[in-house]
Amino acid sequence: MIKVVAHNFVRDGCLSEFLAVVKTLVEETNSLDPGCLSYAMYQDLSDPLRVTCIEEWASEETMNSHLKSAHFRKSVEDLLPYCAKPTEASLYKKLF
Amino acid sequence: MIKVVAHNFVRDGCLSEFLAVVKTLVEETNSLDPGCLSYAMYQDLSDPLRVTCIEEWASEETMNSHLKSAHFRKSVEDLLPYCAKPTEASLYKKLF
Repeated sequence: MIKVVAHNFVRDGCLSEFLAVVKTLVEETNSLDPGCLSYAMYQDLSDPLRVTCIEEWASEETMNSHLKSAHFRKSVEDLLPYCAKPTEASLYKKLF
Repeated sequence: MIKVVAHNFVRDGCLSEFLAVVKTLVEETNSLDPGCLSYAMYQDLSDPLRVTCIEEWASEETMNSHLKSAHFRKSVEDLLPYCAKPTEASLYKKLF
């Protein structure tokens, strides 16, 4: 199992456009991608322009096929104009 | 619901001592603290000395009573000598 925490930094004034794209991404990922155990978007209570995706994948392989999927690649393209800087993602293994 | 991502930075050479304390903390929190939806420890795949707690609480109130609990306060004390720098925690609300 792989856990991912991916911080997205939204450009000021672009939050609603950003959220519209990631809402679809969350729906598609949960319904289309094999090995997706959970995939949800969260908003930082101290910074509403920081939108963090917390994900859980059955394996690194299933996560990688998600990253190569058409719907993910399209979202990345659509989101680019709404991002202040690149996403910062960390991968984790569960300890206990 | 409140989601918490708390990054801990372990001092080099203190990982096993650190993990022994947080293992107990995870067990006690999951079994003792009302409103604890999930509370688990993860190790960063790119930095084994970065141990991240990802938590889910029914409300900010239940999270705060956890932070005031005897077992949590004791863990913080026990962990101090094994930490390279203070924990960095962010609180989130779920979007979708």
